[in-house]
Amino acid sequence: MTIDKSIPNATAKRLSIYYRTFKRFHAAKVEKASSKQIAEAIGIDSATVRRDFSYFGELGRRGFGYDVEKLMNFFAELLNDNAITSVALIGVGNLGSAMLNYKFHERNKMKIAMAFDIKGNPLVGTTTPEGTPIYDFADIKEKIAQTDIKTAIITVPSNNSQEVADELIRAGIKGILSFSPINLTLPKDVVVQYVDLTSELQTLLYFMRNNKG
Amino acid sequence: MTIDKSIPNATAKRLSIYYRTFKRFHAAKVEKASSKQIAEAIGIDSATVRRDFSYFGELGRRGFGYDVEKLMNFFAELLNDNAITSVALIGVGNLGSAMLNYKFHERNKMKIAMAFDIKGNPLVGTTTPEGTPIYDFADIKEKIAQTDIKTAIITVPSNNSQEVADELIRAGIKGILSFSPINLTLPKDVVVQYVDLTSELQTLLYFMRNNKG
Repeated sequence: MTIDKSIPNATAKRLSIYYRTFKRFHAAKVEKASSKQIAEAIGIDSATVRRDFSYFGELGRRGFGYDVEKLMNFFAELLNDNAITSVALIGVGNLGSAMLNYKFHERNKMKIAMAFDIKGNPLVGTTTPEGTPIYDFADIKEKIAQTDIKTAIITVPSNNSQEVADELIRAGIKGILSFSPINLTLPKDVVVQYVDLTSELQTLLYFMRNNKG
Repeated sequence: MTIDKSIPNATAKRLSIYYRTFKRFHAAKVEKASSKQIAEAIGIDSATVRRDFSYFGELGRRGFGYDVEKLMNFFAELLNDNAITSVALIGVGNLGSAMLNYKFHERNKMKIAMAFDIKGNPLVGTTTPEGTPIYDFADIKEKIAQTDIKTAIITVPSNNSQEVADELIRAGIKGILSFSPINLTLPKDVVVQYVDLTSELQTLLYFMRNNKG
């Protein structure tokens, strides 16, 4: 979609939140939603919603509320939610196991197709109850080469995350979701998204202190 | 600090990222950092950095690079990182166990002081190797009342998250970090921060598609 090019990064980061919200409205049989309703459902201000929606062309220009079903389908297409995406998981400790159990694919077409860890992990060589194989990380290049996987989730200890990322690049991975607070050094054509739990908690505490009075 | 009031939400959400970046610069013995260096370290554009820093008063006005140590201390104070904050964890499955192992307090003064789950979880009544007690969720009001805990992390299945949140409110909790994709309905004086892993992965995939060419 050519429209993507003009969407600023800050707006792009909210697309999946809008998508989730419109799916929820649709499930609740809401047909039209105002910027105020959308803003309240998400917890941002309505001026931001209106500015974001001004980038969505025709669909974003609704004086009497936005059409829920049309926008839901628009976001699904924009986020490519109609295609199935397979990802690899690196690191099968507690967090990795949580990811393997996480229902990415119940509402969305994303699934962890294979997981990796070092040989010391007794889970290597086994298959999860859901059928996801857990391979030796030493074989990652060969295993990934047999698939069209371009995306990986890293749930390894922080001090291993850069070397794991380097190996993923060599295996052809182009996008990384990292749970490590370490900023990764990566080639320009590789995209990284960080989930930094300390930052999330710090941000929550900041808003708690500034919500008073 | 009176300065907080004028910081927009979007900037406030980046404070902990700036803090982390300046701590890293400081550890690497970098004394001055330009908006370009900061922007590149974080992966945002330098105009955003300059706009954000314009809210930080005197410290944000540096023509020859920002003073790393002063700004690191400024962010630490703004984020209250010199005070110890105890939080409660609700739900000790894989994700909750990962949170219990997560080193929030190694670099920051945040720690999970107690965890809760329903009686069916065999971990209830035990203590983690790090000394965190895991209590019956039925006792949460009484247990929280004996502490100054105002913050909770929810790692329970999505369809239980609203009822858990309701009970947390009754126990006096004022801030929630939720890993469930369900938007919680909460009183106005309660702050919530969502970590939605499906959204994070969707956003990564969107940026991967739009990074090409």
